[in-house]
Amino acid sequence: MTREASFWGWGWADKFPSRQVRQSFGGQLQAMLGFEPKGPFDPPTIDDVRLEPSRIAPPASLPFVTDDREERVRHTYGRAFRDILRGFAGDFSAAPDLVGHPTSEADVVAALDWAADARVAVIPYGGGTSVVGGIEARVPAGYAGTLSLDLRRLDRVLEVEPTSLHARIQAGASGPVLERQLAEHGLTLRCFPQSFEHSTLGGWIATRAGGHFATVYTHVDDLTASVRAVTPRGVWESRRLPGSGAGPSPDRMLLGSEGTLGVITEAWMRVRPKPRFRATASVHFSEWSDAVSAARALAQSGLFPTNCRLLDRREAALNFVTTDGTHVLLVGFESADHPLQPWMERALELCRDHGGRSPKGPTYAERDEKSGDGGAAGAWKAAFVEAPYLMNVLVSLGILVDTFETAVTWDRFDALHADVVTSVRGAMQEVAGGGFLSCRFTHVYPDGPAPYFTWIAPARAGSEIAQWDAIKSAASEALMRHGATITHHHAVGRFHRPWYDRQRPEPFAMALRAAKRELDPNAVLNPGVLFDP
Amino acid sequence: MTREASFWGWGWADKFPSRQVRQSFGGQLQAMLGFEPKGPFDPPTIDDVRLEPSRIAPPASLPFVTDDREERVRHTYGRAFRDILRGFAGDFSAAPDLVGHPTSEADVVAALDWAADARVAVIPYGGGTSVVGGIEARVPAGYAGTLSLDLRRLDRVLEVEPTSLHARIQAGASGPVLERQLAEHGLTLRCFPQSFEHSTLGGWIATRAGGHFATVYTHVDDLTASVRAVTPRGVWESRRLPGSGAGPSPDRMLLGSEGTLGVITEAWMRVRPKPRFRATASVHFSEWSDAVSAARALAQSGLFPTNCRLLDRREAALNFVTTDGTHVLLVGFESADHPLQPWMERALELCRDHGGRSPKGPTYAERDEKSGDGGAAGAWKAAFVEAPYLMNVLVSLGILVDTFETAVTWDRFDALHADVVTSVRGAMQEVAGGGFLSCRFTHVYPDGPAPYFTWIAPARAGSEIAQWDAIKSAASEALMRHGATITHHHAVGRFHRPWYDRQRPEPFAMALRAAKRELDPNAVLNPGVLFDP
Repeated sequence: MTREASFWGWGWADKFPSRQVRQSFGGQLQAMLGFEPKGPFDPPTIDDVRLEPSRIAPPASLPFVTDDREERVRHTYGRAFRDILRGFAGDFSAAPDLVGHPTSEADVVAALDWAADARVAVIPYGGGTSVVGGIEARVPAGYAGTLSLDLRRLDRVLEVEPTSLHARIQAGASGPVLERQLAEHGLTLRCFPQSFEHSTLGGWIATRAGGHFATVYTHVDDLTASVRAVTPRGVWESRRLPGSGAGPSPDRMLLGSEGTLGVITEAWMRVRPKPRFRATASVHFSEWSDAVSAARALAQSGLFPTNCRLLDRREAALNFVTTDGTHVLLVGFESADHPLQPWMERALELCRDHGGRSPKGPTYAERDEKSGDGGAAGAWKAAFVEAPYLMNVLVSLGILVDTFETAVTWDRFDALHADVVTSVRGAMQEVAGGGFLSCRFTHVYPDGPAPYFTWIAPARAGSEIAQWDAIKSAASEALMRHGATITHHHAVGRFHRPWYDRQRPEPFAMALRAAKRELDPNAVLNPGVLFDP
Repeated sequence: MTREASFWGWGWADKFPSRQVRQSFGGQLQAMLGFEPKGPFDPPTIDDVRLEPSRIAPPASLPFVTDDREERVRHTYGRAFRDILRGFAGDFSAAPDLVGHPTSEADVVAALDWAADARVAVIPYGGGTSVVGGIEARVPAGYAGTLSLDLRRLDRVLEVEPTSLHARIQAGASGPVLERQLAEHGLTLRCFPQSFEHSTLGGWIATRAGGHFATVYTHVDDLTASVRAVTPRGVWESRRLPGSGAGPSPDRMLLGSEGTLGVITEAWMRVRPKPRFRATASVHFSEWSDAVSAARALAQSGLFPTNCRLLDRREAALNFVTTDGTHVLLVGFESADHPLQPWMERALELCRDHGGRSPKGPTYAERDEKSGDGGAAGAWKAAFVEAPYLMNVLVSLGILVDTFETAVTWDRFDALHADVVTSVRGAMQEVAGGGFLSCRFTHVYPDGPAPYFTWIAPARAGSEIAQWDAIKSAASEALMRHGATITHHHAVGRFHRPWYDRQRPEPFAMALRAAKRELDPNAVLNPGVLFDP
């Protein structure tokens, strides 16, 4: 019943291909990437990995806390490239001293109280899929130890309110776990970050995860009706409301707080009936600038497409969507209420106005409530969820790979894109002798897109982290130069700190730090993430 | 050229009707309200009103600051009933000591610096239309004096970026002033609070004003791309972005801060082309519960109507929309991009499913870009902007009148509505011998409506404030009992404090106060609003 997660890489352990398959895949990649993979190398077994003994013993007062070696290994890293690289190398020296599995809010309160007395840093842990160093036990000096607080035993949908389409969900529920429970009521949250299979509601809220909808409900922020969190100074719970204008939004201060102000234990979420009608189309463009203009026209049309995902020619090839050198705009609408022909027809008209061709035309589907995801949408969703597994394979082939994403206004996008291409390719050339870079839009706003970049380059054994640092830095500096955000939906964590510190208004940073000192006077909560306390 | 604003009541001075017109209007009202108006009484002249001499002299270092008597009178009150009542009675004892008219951000900085040294409380002032005591100089003990800082000379649209549909606008621009400047570019902000003619962008942002759109872009929050504010500890300016996931949103902490954390000086706003296509319909319902169900169906349909304003039978009569005892749902769509028949047809189908009838059917209009607002939409807009003038007239007729608004989930709405009706009617009966109460929805969300109530009752000379307090308190307690918010878009100010304090999560209150102490260590900024520093 219990499927085993990989302790060193992305996702399920059984998804890591055999050496033979990886070798053959490496051969196929060579043509696309323009360099020869190494290896394949093999990952360690869990018995082989290296970590220090725990510096502190689990307190008798917290029976849900352990210093079990395997638990510590499994809570050491997120799933950024540099995490998987270290995991693949068997280096778990960053392991937390303790791991806790609270089964109630009272357990969370007890853990925070104990940690304050014991000078132990607490790292709230959801699905462990952070790609920004958000959940690793790398904390400033002065702590007696670290405790990774894994919320996943708090995974129930506690209440469903069908009239208002609200559900009260515990923070530790992963995407599939909460969707299964909602499906019993014919409802869905439809928050599908790429980590959907593993990440949790609390993690989504803490990191302002981006989800399924290309427009309107782009972040989990928009799906959140109220949040409940345990802070060292008491429980923070907002009213369950459809909207309010009473002072600054309390929820918006927890959204994006990345475990620094409190441990999110549950939230009332805005759910919806499963969609009945779907319309999808793939629109091809010869020119990138035309494709961008079409995406902008759609974003500004007021049609509010569910999907408006633009893949550049390289991204399209990497995902086997097209291989003829065209850029592809995936357009989708969904509704539980009405057929979608007028929406899709106008969307395709706008695409045609910008030089787009849809050789297969749109597809319309209506389904009964019991059927699953099918057709192109289902295929895309499956491929989308599979994509991160590629990183495991590439690491085993001696290849550097990472993604980064941002949001920027339309007027600045062309210059940003050109600069990213020049800077990241330049950095890959310099530190790796070359590499691959592709771009897609994950979300679009009337005022700008959220571009998402993937880069792949050959690793030099022993220098991988230095190579990654150089390329990451080149990418981030390009974002800063063009006024883009350091992250649209991957969060800040520890890796984005240098650039986040520069983009955050200084008085706001002062306000956040003051709030932190007030709520967490012993600086127990995820120290080093977002800001220095 | 300069039209004179009323110094004691809502809006333009020339809009206050003659004694004869008011007398005749009072006669017409009697039938609807069920009680006999008094008077009409006449307002004071500005020379007659009473105020104390200023306690402090304007500093020579701030040439834009004055202790001019008329300026002080004109900056004494917002435009709540109790403000207009006191103004009508000639009582301006609450006047600020000084009034400043900064013409640059440097002036704002200088004013805050001086105020910190001089222990003077600074009340940022936009259009002066607060209905919650947000801009009056009622401050805690310990200040040497008060300065009303009027931002209205900072009223320029500084930049327009047409590709991203962004405009950089100074905080002191009123609705018409900023719309006129945007119109030169064929653009519009479309933030139309009822105070549109007088209130300012900075005031909207500081109070999270509700605007034109019934769905999606309900608050000015959603139209704000970045904010610039002067705090006593430096300038707070966020990046102009379409979206971000980098930490908690800095803008969302200023939105709703009501002048307590900084003086908002400008913002990048999301603007749009003027709509070309419009569709409108009035749908009539015999049963209130059917009308509510239809509004909910529309809110949950994903059609995103621009207008979805439900008027109960009393509200409809008060606004001369219908007088046959039906409840009316005003449905509207607008678009700069596409004709709206499919949207409206499905909306009317949903209304029919819930027993709604649209005797006149929908109206579709397409207009060239130069024409103004016309037809039903224009008529409603005009009536909407005129409505607050009624308060001036009613005060002159010895009548108590007020509005209050909230938001609540659909599942709680029926009980809330019943309780408000019982509680407010009961309070009016007790303190005034009876009264009138009507309800409309101003905005609707998938998870709940924003109901807006109007009440009118006979005043007892000399007891008006006590009567108002009793009725306001009965209304607010009913909201609290049903988990509704104390305000959806009127803000907190000083009048809503007792209930806001109860609905705000305590750890969030602690965080806000800590942020305030950090940014405004001398507690200069609007003390007493939102929280005690």
